[in-house]
Amino acid sequence: MTRWIRFELEGEDAFGTLEGETVVVHRGDMFGETAATGTRLALSDVTLLTPCQPGKMIALWNNFHALAAKLGLATPLHPLYFFKAATSFLAGGGAIRRPAGYDGRIIYEGELGIVIGKTCSHIDEAAAADHIFGYTCINDVTAVDILNADSSFPQWARAKSFDSFGVFGPVIATGLDPAGLVVRTILNGQERQNYPVSDIVFQPARIVSLISRDMTLQPGDVIACGTSVGAGSMKEARNEVTIRIEGIGELTNLFEQSH
Amino acid sequence: MTRWIRFELEGEDAFGTLEGETVVVHRGDMFGETAATGTRLALSDVTLLTPCQPGKMIALWNNFHALAAKLGLATPLHPLYFFKAATSFLAGGGAIRRPAGYDGRIIYEGELGIVIGKTCSHIDEAAAADHIFGYTCINDVTAVDILNADSSFPQWARAKSFDSFGVFGPVIATGLDPAGLVVRTILNGQERQNYPVSDIVFQPARIVSLISRDMTLQPGDVIACGTSVGAGSMKEARNEVTIRIEGIGELTNLFEQSH
Repeated sequence: MTRWIRFELEGEDAFGTLEGETVVVHRGDMFGETAATGTRLALSDVTLLTPCQPGKMIALWNNFHALAAKLGLATPLHPLYFFKAATSFLAGGGAIRRPAGYDGRIIYEGELGIVIGKTCSHIDEAAAADHIFGYTCINDVTAVDILNADSSFPQWARAKSFDSFGVFGPVIATGLDPAGLVVRTILNGQERQNYPVSDIVFQPARIVSLISRDMTLQPGDVIACGTSVGAGSMKEARNEVTIRIEGIGELTNLFEQSH
Repeated sequence: MTRWIRFELEGEDAFGTLEGETVVVHRGDMFGETAATGTRLALSDVTLLTPCQPGKMIALWNNFHALAAKLGLATPLHPLYFFKAATSFLAGGGAIRRPAGYDGRIIYEGELGIVIGKTCSHIDEAAAADHIFGYTCINDVTAVDILNADSSFPQWARAKSFDSFGVFGPVIATGLDPAGLVVRTILNGQERQNYPVSDIVFQPARIVSLISRDMTLQPGDVIACGTSVGAGSMKEARNEVTIRIEGIGELTNLFEQSH
């Protein structure tokens, strides 16, 4: 397994692999040809960026059986999704910010993220695995009181795309089977979510196959697989929220009410 | 008034202004410093691209009084919107394509498009005008039978983001007041839409101000202002659809059922 990161080095974007606490700097195209430059850095000396720059982030709703059962939702026949704007993207370590003028609840949602590695359109499930580059951790932050504020139109785009609400990273882990993974969310030291990816409605290769029939997927596009039970509000003055997927990594961010 | 276009020249992306049927090639950044290169080309010799490459396309719903009255919808208190994926973008002259496996209705929606010129966040209405670069024509194509196919989740993202469904261009017209514009849609030679921008609920500067409070807007971002009465299905074997906004231009595309 390889863990890819993207980071800032002397004002320039750079990328490489993570070996323990060491960054092995690479050149080339993360989704194409790459080679180690020979430079090795301490992880603590670099500023993490989101591990890729998605042309689009597609986020699924109602994709876990346990949450569907809790909410009394029928199993969907096709992935149900919305988009999160690129301006919402935030790396691990960055500050999640309360939108000015919004006093409502802001919730975390821990999710598994699929990162596309090759352009694909209308591919079948067998081919999908070959077009998935790897997996990342996602915190799909939501200004949840906006979602149904207008009874005529659910505001998925707006509630989910405030600046800093599209949190993902810190790494993209390649060469792993997502079926056995467990997604955990830890809020201020307390575990709030702990659910197995095996409870998923549409598993990753099936999501990629089905959505590739809706639109062309491109290298770096990210698909958030949806959350399960335990998503909730960040109510404290200072909230430290971590999405942990063993085998991938830990995505930790701070959300302070007053900032 | 200046009309900007983007086009392909000898395999490279290029841009310039349009003077009648002549393209005045420019270098630089369309949203920053530009200078004419001295090269002039015949419009018929270049291949048009979308006039810019939006980081996001935000599309409004229920933003015209006449359509709201017809559908019995309340006037919204805030712009209601969804996103169209970058992979859906299509230039004037390009072919709108039926998604493989979808046999339902495909509708045109003629709309005024706002093109952002400067990065902005939390700006007021007076400042918004200064952050709008110009205006373009939009055909917000929709696989409308998908929209409410699942009663638990309206599929705005999916129904609106198939490849080739985000049609805009051919030009961005700068230095014009949108208040007096009229949006017309002509399908196979027959006028199907003809509505004044003055009937709008949220006018462009107000849209930009309000959405800039939701998310950072960046140069090249496009906001589709929503459609009014007369949007409808493209039913013929061969459909030629034109969005015409006098003062901006004409956006013409072909949609053939069998392609």
